[in-house]
Amino acid sequence: MGLNVSLSIFLMFLALCSAIPNKRKQYTPCKHLVLYFHDIIYNGNNAANATSAIVAAPEGANLTKLTGQFHFGNIVVFDDPITLDNNLRSKPVGRAQGFYIYDTKNTFTSWLGFTFILNSIDHEGTITFAGADPTLQKSRDISIIGGTGDFFMHRGIVTIMTDAFEGEVYFRLRVDIKLHECW
Amino acid sequence: MGLNVSLSIFLMFLALCSAIPNKRKQYTPCKHLVLYFHDIIYNGNNAANATSAIVAAPEGANLTKLTGQFHFGNIVVFDDPITLDNNLRSKPVGRAQGFYIYDTKNTFTSWLGFTFILNSIDHEGTITFAGADPTLQKSRDISIIGGTGDFFMHRGIVTIMTDAFEGEVYFRLRVDIKLHECW
Amino acid sequence: MGLNVSLSIFLMFLALCSAIPNKRKQYTPCKHLVLYFHDIIYNGNNAANATSAIVAAPEGANLTKLTGQFHFGNIVVFDDPITLDNNLRSKPVGRAQGFYIYDTKNTFTSWLGFTFILNSIDHEGTITFAGADPTLQKSRDISIIGGTGDFFMHRGIVTIMTDAFEGEVYFRLRVDIKLHECW
Repeated sequence: MGLNVSLSIFLMFLALCSAIPNKRKQYTPCKHLVLYFHDIIYNGNNAANATSAIVAAPEGANLTKLTGQFHFGNIVVFDDPITLDNNLRSKPVGRAQGFYIYDTKNTFTSWLGFTFILNSIDHEGTITFAGADPTLQKSRDISIIGGTGDFFMHRGIVTIMTDAFEGEVYFRLRVDIKLHECW
Repeated sequence: MGLNVSLSIFLMFLALCSAIPNKRKQYTPCKHLVLYFHDIIYNGNNAANATSAIVAAPEGANLTKLTGQFHFGNIVVFDDPITLDNNLRSKPVGRAQGFYIYDTKNTFTSWLGFTFILNSIDHEGTITFAGADPTLQKSRDISIIGGTGDFFMHRGIVTIMTDAFEGEVYFRLRVDIKLHECW
Repeated sequence: MGLNVSLSIFLMFLALCSAIPNKRKQYTPCKHLVLYFHDIIYNGNNAANATSAIVAAPEGANLTKLTGQFHFGNIVVFDDPITLDNNLRSKPVGRAQGFYIYDTKNTFTSWLGFTFILNSIDHEGTITFAGADPTLQKSRDISIIGGTGDFFMHRGIVTIMTDAFEGEVYFRLRVDIKLHECW
């Protein structure tokens, strides 16, 4: 019984300690994938290999470049290859399809709604994402709101990092997919 | 105890067998609805009975017909009647409202974000859907990401089938709504 | 024991009564927040303080005012301040970022996809919303489809009320955020 009391006190102390630096509980994902996807924005001259296009913009802006400092509102539709590593030429394991919206007047942020359609030996199914992306932060979290196939009814969090960025034409995102609800 | 051992071996064998043909678990929905909805795309001449309109397109495309082979990015906003059978003239039991995006350059696929607003004797509430729709496949699964009213906090999967398609003006979808999380 | 029987009968009676007027179960949220957000639509002359802009519209409509009676399909992108009270000048506790779509030809309804990015002493994290908003109803429910940070993996329902509306330039929404799945 003395051991039990000691253990209880130790656990209470542990709980107290961990509560101070970070009040949030930590969870281990039930599934975990790291993938990359590659976005090549249509600029008027690259129709053959562009994977995305600006399709909407506010008054006074146009559809082949991002709107200026005091405009925002570009909507971009994309169909991007997904790869296992950071090489655009690697064999795709699926496609990332959906849209993003540039939604701040004085910095780069976006709102994302898209789906990973995975079709490889390892994974067959879809994962759907939605949320705000403060693009200039090193890493940012978006919600995983649903899945089908191998990811039937799954939910979770994806941590996105910009892995490369070349002007306003190409960027590559590293996505760390942590599924916390599996079925 | 002999029975227990036999049962254990049998169950292990069963688990092994079922793992080979299909590793996925099968679930029975807690609620199940089959409905139809009808989309009439505005083509410049049918304002009175159109239920949807192209509202965004990439540079060089226009808003009254789908962009050509090497363009994509049309965004369509819709407010479509929902019926219990496949007849456009049947009394609607609700409205399907939201948008879809054509998001591939070399085939028909779309990304859907929309809500069923049901208002009938049987059902009162909303069901919200999001996900990728590879339109040319016979049946495809989309995530059900939330609900309200009778569908408070529900989640699930919807299997979509194109039930009819008339040129670029009318299509009808059969939606098999399988709710797997009910409250 | 007589008391227990009486209590049981009373509870059964209570359950029966409450079942007749409303068959739905009632749930108490695990977290509850009331917030306001403020939307100032760009009208061609208010670039400095506008927080949203029309970025897409059907054929024949334009991007600085809402489309007429027989058009619909405006897409509005926004980055709105969130406040604790109904005063636009109060110190923001975060931003509401995303989009809405006007999606009916003969009344005002919209489809919403957006995220609250909260960054205050009380809350740090995001809450993502999606669903249909029948704007003219006094209160309407939208689904909360995901969260991050303090709202990691949360889901719930938000009840939206239009708290003020000034022409086609300014509106303020009161949002009653009820989280029913907390982690």
